[in-house]
Amino acid sequence: MYEKTLKDVLTKYKDGMIELNDAINILNHLPYEDIGFAKIDYNREVRKGFPEVIYCEGKTPKQVKEIAMHMFERGSNVLGTRASIKHYEALKEVCDDVKYYDLARIISIKAEDITKTKGVIGVIAAGTSDLPVAEEAAVTAELMGNSVKRIYDVGVAGIHRLLNKIDEIREFRVIICIAGMEGALPTVVGGLVGCPIIAVPTSIGYGANFHGLSALLAMLNSCSSGVSVVNIDNGFGAAYSASLINKIGE
Amino acid sequence: MYEKTLKDVLTKYKDGMIELNDAINILNHLPYEDIGFAKIDYNREVRKGFPEVIYCEGKTPKQVKEIAMHMFERGSNVLGTRASIKHYEALKEVCDDVKYYDLARIISIKAEDITKTKGVIGVIAAGTSDLPVAEEAAVTAELMGNSVKRIYDVGVAGIHRLLNKIDEIREFRVIICIAGMEGALPTVVGGLVGCPIIAVPTSIGYGANFHGLSALLAMLNSCSSGVSVVNIDNGFGAAYSASLINKIGE
Amino acid sequence: MYEKTLKDVLTKYKDGMIELNDAINILNHLPYEDIGFAKIDYNREVRKGFPEVIYCEGKTPKQVKEIAMHMFERGSNVLGTRASIKHYEALKEVCDDVKYYDLARIISIKAEDITKTKGVIGVIAAGTSDLPVAEEAAVTAELMGNSVKRIYDVGVAGIHRLLNKIDEIREFRVIICIAGMEGALPTVVGGLVGCPIIAVPTSIGYGANFHGLSALLAMLNSCSSGVSVVNIDNGFGAAYSASLINKIGE
Amino acid sequence: MYEKTLKDVLTKYKDGMIELNDAINILNHLPYEDIGFAKIDYNREVRKGFPEVIYCEGKTPKQVKEIAMHMFERGSNVLGTRASIKHYEALKEVCDDVKYYDLARIISIKAEDITKTKGVIGVIAAGTSDLPVAEEAAVTAELMGNSVKRIYDVGVAGIHRLLNKIDEIREFRVIICIAGMEGALPTVVGGLVGCPIIAVPTSIGYGANFHGLSALLAMLNSCSSGVSVVNIDNGFGAAYSASLINKIGE
Amino acid sequence: MYEKTLKDVLTKYKDGMIELNDAINILNHLPYEDIGFAKIDYNREVRKGFPEVIYCEGKTPKQVKEIAMHMFERGSNVLGTRASIKHYEALKEVCDDVKYYDLARIISIKAEDITKTKGVIGVIAAGTSDLPVAEEAAVTAELMGNSVKRIYDVGVAGIHRLLNKIDEIREFRVIICIAGMEGALPTVVGGLVGCPIIAVPTSIGYGANFHGLSALLAMLNSCSSGVSVVNIDNGFGAAYSASLINKIGE
Amino acid sequence: MYEKTLKDVLTKYKDGMIELNDAINILNHLPYEDIGFAKIDYNREVRKGFPEVIYCEGKTPKQVKEIAMHMFERGSNVLGTRASIKHYEALKEVCDDVKYYDLARIISIKAEDITKTKGVIGVIAAGTSDLPVAEEAAVTAELMGNSVKRIYDVGVAGIHRLLNKIDEIREFRVIICIAGMEGALPTVVGGLVGCPIIAVPTSIGYGANFHGLSALLAMLNSCSSGVSVVNIDNGFGAAYSASLINKIGE
Amino acid sequence: MYEKTLKDVLTKYKDGMIELNDAINILNHLPYEDIGFAKIDYNREVRKGFPEVIYCEGKTPKQVKEIAMHMFERGSNVLGTRASIKHYEALKEVCDDVKYYDLARIISIKAEDITKTKGVIGVIAAGTSDLPVAEEAAVTAELMGNSVKRIYDVGVAGIHRLLNKIDEIREFRVIICIAGMEGALPTVVGGLVGCPIIAVPTSIGYGANFHGLSALLAMLNSCSSGVSVVNIDNGFGAAYSASLINKIGE
Amino acid sequence: MYEKTLKDVLTKYKDGMIELNDAINILNHLPYEDIGFAKIDYNREVRKGFPEVIYCEGKTPKQVKEIAMHMFERGSNVLGTRASIKHYEALKEVCDDVKYYDLARIISIKAEDITKTKGVIGVIAAGTSDLPVAEEAAVTAELMGNSVKRIYDVGVAGIHRLLNKIDEIREFRVIICIAGMEGALPTVVGGLVGCPIIAVPTSIGYGANFHGLSALLAMLNSCSSGVSVVNIDNGFGAAYSASLINKIGE
Repeated sequence: MYEKTLKDVLTKYKDGMIELNDAINILNHLPYEDIGFAKIDYNREVRKGFPEVIYCEGKTPKQVKEIAMHMFERGSNVLGTRASIKHYEALKEVCDDVKYYDLARIISIKAEDITKTKGVIGVIAAGTSDLPVAEEAAVTAELMGNSVKRIYDVGVAGIHRLLNKIDEIREFRVIICIAGMEGALPTVVGGLVGCPIIAVPTSIGYGANFHGLSALLAMLNSCSSGVSVVNIDNGFGAAYSASLINKIGE
Repeated sequence: MYEKTLKDVLTKYKDGMIELNDAINILNHLPYEDIGFAKIDYNREVRKGFPEVIYCEGKTPKQVKEIAMHMFERGSNVLGTRASIKHYEALKEVCDDVKYYDLARIISIKAEDITKTKGVIGVIAAGTSDLPVAEEAAVTAELMGNSVKRIYDVGVAGIHRLLNKIDEIREFRVIICIAGMEGALPTVVGGLVGCPIIAVPTSIGYGANFHGLSALLAMLNSCSSGVSVVNIDNGFGAAYSASLINKIGE
Repeated sequence: MYEKTLKDVLTKYKDGMIELNDAINILNHLPYEDIGFAKIDYNREVRKGFPEVIYCEGKTPKQVKEIAMHMFERGSNVLGTRASIKHYEALKEVCDDVKYYDLARIISIKAEDITKTKGVIGVIAAGTSDLPVAEEAAVTAELMGNSVKRIYDVGVAGIHRLLNKIDEIREFRVIICIAGMEGALPTVVGGLVGCPIIAVPTSIGYGANFHGLSALLAMLNSCSSGVSVVNIDNGFGAAYSASLINKIGE
Repeated sequence: MYEKTLKDVLTKYKDGMIELNDAINILNHLPYEDIGFAKIDYNREVRKGFPEVIYCEGKTPKQVKEIAMHMFERGSNVLGTRASIKHYEALKEVCDDVKYYDLARIISIKAEDITKTKGVIGVIAAGTSDLPVAEEAAVTAELMGNSVKRIYDVGVAGIHRLLNKIDEIREFRVIICIAGMEGALPTVVGGLVGCPIIAVPTSIGYGANFHGLSALLAMLNSCSSGVSVVNIDNGFGAAYSASLINKIGE
Repeated sequence: MYEKTLKDVLTKYKDGMIELNDAINILNHLPYEDIGFAKIDYNREVRKGFPEVIYCEGKTPKQVKEIAMHMFERGSNVLGTRASIKHYEALKEVCDDVKYYDLARIISIKAEDITKTKGVIGVIAAGTSDLPVAEEAAVTAELMGNSVKRIYDVGVAGIHRLLNKIDEIREFRVIICIAGMEGALPTVVGGLVGCPIIAVPTSIGYGANFHGLSALLAMLNSCSSGVSVVNIDNGFGAAYSASLINKIGE
Repeated sequence: MYEKTLKDVLTKYKDGMIELNDAINILNHLPYEDIGFAKIDYNREVRKGFPEVIYCEGKTPKQVKEIAMHMFERGSNVLGTRASIKHYEALKEVCDDVKYYDLARIISIKAEDITKTKGVIGVIAAGTSDLPVAEEAAVTAELMGNSVKRIYDVGVAGIHRLLNKIDEIREFRVIICIAGMEGALPTVVGGLVGCPIIAVPTSIGYGANFHGLSALLAMLNSCSSGVSVVNIDNGFGAAYSASLINKIGE
Repeated sequence: MYEKTLKDVLTKYKDGMIELNDAINILNHLPYEDIGFAKIDYNREVRKGFPEVIYCEGKTPKQVKEIAMHMFERGSNVLGTRASIKHYEALKEVCDDVKYYDLARIISIKAEDITKTKGVIGVIAAGTSDLPVAEEAAVTAELMGNSVKRIYDVGVAGIHRLLNKIDEIREFRVIICIAGMEGALPTVVGGLVGCPIIAVPTSIGYGANFHGLSALLAMLNSCSSGVSVVNIDNGFGAAYSASLINKIGE
Repeated sequence: MYEKTLKDVLTKYKDGMIELNDAINILNHLPYEDIGFAKIDYNREVRKGFPEVIYCEGKTPKQVKEIAMHMFERGSNVLGTRASIKHYEALKEVCDDVKYYDLARIISIKAEDITKTKGVIGVIAAGTSDLPVAEEAAVTAELMGNSVKRIYDVGVAGIHRLLNKIDEIREFRVIICIAGMEGALPTVVGGLVGCPIIAVPTSIGYGANFHGLSALLAMLNSCSSGVSVVNIDNGFGAAYSASLINKIGE
C-alpha cells in the first residue's frame, strides 16, 4: 500500500485497465491467504527476501501440516523451527520431500533450489550443550542459502582451542557466536575479528544462570564492539539476521 | 600471534633477517602502547578495521586528552563517546581540529580522510526524547565513514508517519532502530523491510519501564525476523555493528 | 449495609413492618450462601451486574459441580473459567444444559436468556498461539451478553494484515487486544482507533520473554493512549472490563 | 490510507476532480506537520477524538513552546503533561491563555470550548501522597471535557472512610482508582461497584515497594473483576482511557 | 552454655560434685542427639518452648520415621510438616498413634497432652485455593496447644462476607491472615482490628503473580499497622509465631 | 457499622431516642474528621488501641502541622514518623510540647500520660549503620507506652558479643531484630530464644544487597521459627506489631 | 603459545632440530584432541594442575563414555559430575574401575594414585537437605587428592551444634560452607575462624527463596570477612577452589 | 567459650587460681570493648589473624576517629575502607601517622610493622574505570602484609594485552580478578592459570548492566574452575580472602 504500488495501481485504474473494486482488491487481498486459523503472509517473501517461517511450538502437527502444504503448493520453500518428531511425521504422510534435522529441531521442504552464497557464515559454539541452538542456527542459515562453517566446543576456559582456529574464523563474513553460562565467547571473539557478530545466549547452566539471563546480560554488556544480541536460545533469529547480512556481500 | 603471522616471523627469523629477541619482541610488543594508566590498543585497527574508541565516561578530561593525543600523533583518527563539554575543552587546548557533537556527546579528531560509503545506514528513532541516543549512533556511523540518513519521531502510535517514509526506508542497507517505552518500533519496521536491523532500546520512560528494561525485553522478543539488539542507550554499539555490516556491501 | 439500604430497612423496622432481629438478619445474611467450603456471593450480581464467576483451577470437579448447581438452582447463569474437561464431565452428569468451550477452557450453563448488545467488542489477537487466551476473552464476553467479533493472527510483523482490517476495527466500541512476545499490537492498534483498549499480555514466547513479562511491560509502557492492561493470560478479566464498558453505550 | 478514504480518493481522482500527484499528496502529507525536531500528528484528533498531548518531560521549554504554539495556531486545544514551571513560563511569554496546574504538573491552552459530559468520572485516591498522580488524572479528564469528582484519602486501612462514600461512588460511570504501597484500594472498590475501574499504581512507599512494583503487581492480580491497570504514576493514561469510556455513554 | 548454666556447672564442679570431663560433657553433649544423618535438637524445647519440628519435604520416609521415633521415644510430641502420604505410611507401620492431616500435609504423634489456650488464634483465608496453607497454619497452631477458629473464603472482592464476621474477628488474640493474588486481605483486616496479625502470602495466582511475589510485596507494604509477614505459603511459620504470641496472654 | 453498634443504634432509634437522619449520621459521620486535604481517622484509636500515626515523608511541614494540631486539640497523643527537622520546626511554632528525636526522625506531642508496660521489648541491631532504623523502632515503642531495652552492634560476625547478652535477651517478651547486609541476626537470635521476633531488614549494604533485598529475603527464609518480617527499614511497623504483642501480656 | 614455549620452539627450530611445519604443529595441535563432538583439553592438566572434568548433565551416556575412555586411555584420572545412574552404567560396561557416588552424583575412574594432602578441607553443611551439594563438594575434593572432613546438620537455628564443633573447625586449612534458605551459616562460621571460606548457596527452600537467590545474596553480602561465593548448588566449583587453596600449604 | 578455653579456665578456677566471678568475667568480658555507639571486637585479631576493619561509609568522621584511636592506642594497626577525605582529615587532627589512599578510599595507621609475604597476590583489572575497586583490593592486601603486583587494563576485548603478561600472571600464588560490564576476565584468566582466583564484579557499565548484576552473574556462572566471587565492588573482601589464602603458603 506504499507509494510506488499506489502510483502503479492508481495509473492502471485511471486508464481503465482495472476496475474500482479490483483496485481495492489488489491493494488489499494480495498479501496473505486466510486459511481459517491462520493468515499465511506470502507477501513476506517480497518484503523480507525469504518466505514466512513456521514456528511449530504450540501448533498441532495437523496445523503445521496444513500451513506447510499451502505454502509448498504455491511453490514456496518451507522452513519450520522448534519442530518435534510428531510435526515431521504428520508432514511426512503427505510430502516425501520433507527433511527433519533432529538436533536442530527443524523441518524443511525444498520447492526450489537455492544457490549457496560465496560468503561464509561462521557458527561458533562454546560447549557441546549449546549444540541444539548452534544447529538451529546453522541449519537455518543453510536452508536460507548460505555457506556455513561450524566451529564447536571452543569455550574460553581453554582459549587455545579458539586461538588455534583464529585464521579460519577471520575469513568469515559474519559470525554467529553461541554460549551459555557466563557468555564470554562473543566478547573474546569480538576482540579478535573485524566482521559483525550475532551473539546468542543459551539457557545452559544452573543456579544463578537464571535460564540464560547471565549469558544474555553478559552479551548485551560486551566490551567488544560489533556484537549484537538475539533472544536466549534463538538460533533461528541469529541465522536470519546473519543471512541478511551475508547476502549484502553477494 | 596467529598462524600466518607466526609463519612469517618464523621464516624471517630462520633466514636471519631478524634476531631471536626481535622476533619475540615483534610478536609481543607490537600491538599496544602502555601509557601508564592505560594500554592503547593500536592493533585494534588491524583486527577490527577501526581504531580503538575512547569511552570518556569515568575518565578525567586529562586522561582523555592524553589518550587522544597519543592516538592522534600516531596518525589515528580519534573518536570519544559519552564525552562531556569538559572533555572537549581539555582536548581543545592542545588540538584545534577537535570537534564536539553536544547532543551526541561525541568528540572527534580527523587525522585522515574517510571516504563515505555508497550504502546508507538509516537511523530511525521513535520519539524526540530518543534523540541523544539516535545522534550518538548517527554521528558514530558518520565518523566511521558511512553515509547516514536520519528519520526521527516516527513512533508507532502514529504509524502513518512511518508508513509515509517507507519507500525511503526500503533503500537502506542496514537500519539502526531506536525506541524507548514499549520498544515496538523495530518490530514494525522489521515487518516492512528486508535489510538487517540493529535495535537500540532507550531508557526513556518511567514506572514499569524500569530504566529501559521494557524496551529491551520487547526488542529481544520481537516477532519480526532480522532484528538483533544492543545494550540500553548504546547508540555507539549499534553504529559500530551497522558500520561493519554496511561495509560488507562496498 | 450502605446508605439507601440502611434507610429502607430502618424505615420498615420503625414502622413495625420488620422485627429487630429480622432487620439485622436482612442486613447481614442476605448477600451470600455458605456451603461449607465456600461462600457463594449472590449479592455480587446486584453490585456488579453479573453473577459470581467460578475460577475452576485448583478446585476439584466435585467442588465446581456443587457451587455451579447451587447457583443454577437459584436461577443464576453459571460461568466457569480455567475449566478442564474433568470439571465439565462432573457437571454434565447432573445438568444437560452445560456447555464446554475447550479452546477457551470455559464451562457455562444458561439459566436465563441474555440479549446481545448492539455495540461490538473486538477481540484482536497477534498470533495463533494466543488463541486460548483470545477465546477465553471472546467466549466470556459473549456469555456476558456482548456482541463479539474476532480478528486473529494480525501480529505487527506483517502489518498489512492489520491495516487491511482497519475499517472493521474502527467500528468496535471497545477492543480487547491480545499479544505475547514483544506485545506491540495494542500500541499499534491504539494509534489507529479512538475507542478504549484492554490489552492482554500472553505468556507466549521463550527466553527473555520471562513467561509474559516482556509483553506485560511493553503494554504498560505503551506510547499509545487509551490502553489499559490486565494480568498475563487473563482473557477473562479483559472480557469482564470490556463488557462493563460496552454496556455503558447500550 | 484505509479503505474508505481510499475509495473516496480513488473516485475523485478517476472523475478528474483531483490530479495524480494531489491524490498521492492527500494520502501522504495530510496527517502531520514536520517542524524539524518533531512531527506534530494533527491526524490524531481524527483518529482518537482528542488532539496529540505534549509529554513535556525531557523536552526543553523552547521545544514545548514551539510545539504548543503550532498546535494552538491551528485551532487545537493544547494539553501538556509532566510540565515544570519552566515550561509554563516559556509558554506564558507568548500566550496569555495558558494555565498551569502545579500539583498536577499540567499546562493547558483552551482554543475551543468543550462541553462537559453528563457522566461523571470518579477519581479515588488512597492517601495524600498520591495526590500529584490523582490530580494529573483529574485535571486531564476535565480538560478532555469530562465531569470529574474527587474522593481522596480513603485508603483501606480505615475502610469506613470509603464505605461512607459508597453511594456517591456507585453513581460514577467510570472510576480511576489510585494507590501506592500495597495497592489494595482498586480491589476493594472493585468489589463494591459495577462500573469499569482504571487502576493506577503510584511509586509511593519505600523498601520492598520497589518504586511502585508492589502496587502494580497487586493491581494486576486483583481478585476483583472489572479492573484494568496503567503504568506506575500514569495519571494521564488513566484519564485518557477513562475519558474514552465515559464518552461512550453520552 | 550461657551465664546461669555456666555458674551452676562451675559451682558443682568446684564442689567436687562433678568431674572435669563430666562438666565439659554436660556443657557440650546435652543439647542434641546425633543419629548419623541428622542431629536432633532436644534442647530446642527448652529454648523455644516447643520441640523441634520435622520438615519432611526432601527427606525420605525412612529418615522421617527414624527421626520421629527417636523423638517420640524420648517422650516428645512429634510434628512433621510438608508430609506426603508416604511419610505417614512409613510412620504408621511402627506407631499406631500417628495422625495425618492431608489437606494440611501434617503428621503428628501425641506423646503428652497439651492444654488448649483460652486465647483464640483466628485463621482467616481469602479464597478456597488458599486452604492448604490455611490448614497448615490452623493444624500447627492446634497441635501447639492453641484454641483456633477458622474463617475462610472472605476475600475482599466481596467485603460484606468479611464485615459480617467482624465481631467474631475482633475477639481473636492474634490473627493469621492468608491470601494469594493481590494479597489485600491483611491490610483490610488490619484496618479493622487491634490485635497483631501474621500475614501469609500464598502462591495462588498466575502471570504477574510470579509465584506469590505480588501478595508478598503487597503484605510487606501494607498501609495497615500491626501486620508482619512470613514466607510465601509458610502456614507453619505463621502458626509458630502466632502461638508464641498467643501464649503471652495465658 | 458492625452488628453491636447496629443493634444499639437501631434500638435507640426505635425507641424514639434518636431521629432517622441522626441514626444515619451517627453510623456514618462519627469515625473521622475531614480537614480538606486529609481525613483524620479518630476511630482508629477505638479500633487499634492507638491513635493514627502521621507518616511525614511527602507531606509539607504545613500539612503535618495542621493534622497534628487537629489531633492534639482533640486530646490525642501525636506521633509523626519519617519527620525532618522542618516538620519539627513548623510544629514547634504552635506547640511547645513537641519533641524531636533526630536519629529516629520522629516527632511527638504528649497529650495524655501513658503507663509503661511491665513486659520489655528488646530492640537488637546488628551494626551501627542500622541505628536510624533501630531508633525509629525503639522510640515508637516507647511512645506507645512500652518498656524498651536496646542492644546494639551485636552482628553475627562477632557472635560472642551476642552470646554475652543472651541472659538479658531471654528476658524480653518480644524482640525487634534489625540487620542489613546478609540479615542473619534474626535467625541466630531466633535459635536462642522462645519469644516472638519481628525482623526488620535494613537497606544497609551495597552491590548485590540491592537496597535491602538480600536481608529481606534472608529473613523471610529464616530457618528459625517464630520470626516474622516487616518492610525494609520499617522500624515503625516493627514497633507497632511488637507493641500490640507486648500488651497482650499486661 | 606463551613466551617460554615460544622461545623454546623458536630455538629448536632455528637449530634445525625441528621443521617449520612441525614447529607450527607443536604450537597448535598439542593441547587438545578433537573427537568430533568435543575437543578434549589435555593441556588443562598442565595449566590447572588437574585434568578436565566432565560435566555430565546434558550429555548422553554414550558421549560421556566416549570422552571418559579417551581420557582414561591416555592415563588421565576421570571425574564426571552431575552424573546419573545411566551415565555410570554406560561407563561400567567398558571399564570395571569406574565408581559411582550416588548422593554426590559423581563418577570416577582412578588411573593413577593421588597422595592425600596433610591439610584438611572442612565441608560444613547447614541441613540434611543440603547433603547432595555437600557430598558433591566432599567427593570432588577427595578425588582431587585432599583430606576432607564432613560436619553436617549444624544450621544456625541451633547454634550450640556448631559451637560444639568449633575446635575441630578451627583446625581446617580451608572451609567449604554450604547452606540454603537464609544462608547465614558462612557468616557465622566466618566470624569464628581465620581460614578462607568458600560459601555455596543451595536451592533448598521455597517461596521467597527463589531457587537459592536468598542464600546467594546473603552470602555475597556477608558481614564476615574471608568469605567468597560460588554458584547456587555448585559443590564441584567450591571443591575445586578449595583444593587449589589447600595445595598451596603442602 | 570453646572447649580448650573452657578446660583452661575450669582448671585454673578449680585450683583456686581465679575466683568464680573472675572466671565468668574472663569468659565474658574479654573479647570486646564497648565505647557506647559501638563494640570494638579486639578478639577478632585472635580469631581471624587480623584486627577488625572499620567500614567508614555511613559513619561520621567523629565516630571513625574515636574507633580508630581506641584501636590504635591499644597497639592495633588500623584499616578503614570506603573512607572519604573528611574521615581522613578528622583522623589527621589527632594522629600524624595516618595515611590516605584516595583512589582506594582507604585510611590506615601503622602501629606495628608487618613483614611482606614471599608469595605474591596478583591484582588484575579489565579497564581503567575499574581502578578504584582494584586499588581498594591492592592497598588492602598490602596493608595486610602481602606482596602485591598490579596488572591493569587487560580486558578481553584486546586479549593480546593479557596473553602478553601470561608468564608473569602464572607466578602469582592467588589472583584477584576485577571486571565490570560483561565480566569475562576471570573466566579467561581462570582458563590459563592454576592458582585460586577471587573474582570481583564492578558496577561499571550502563543499561542492562544493572549496577554490576551482569558481571556478577557472569562470574558466578564462569565455565572456568577455581573462581569464587565476592560482592559487587567489594575490593576489600577480595583482598581479605586472597590474603588468607596467600598466607597459607608462607
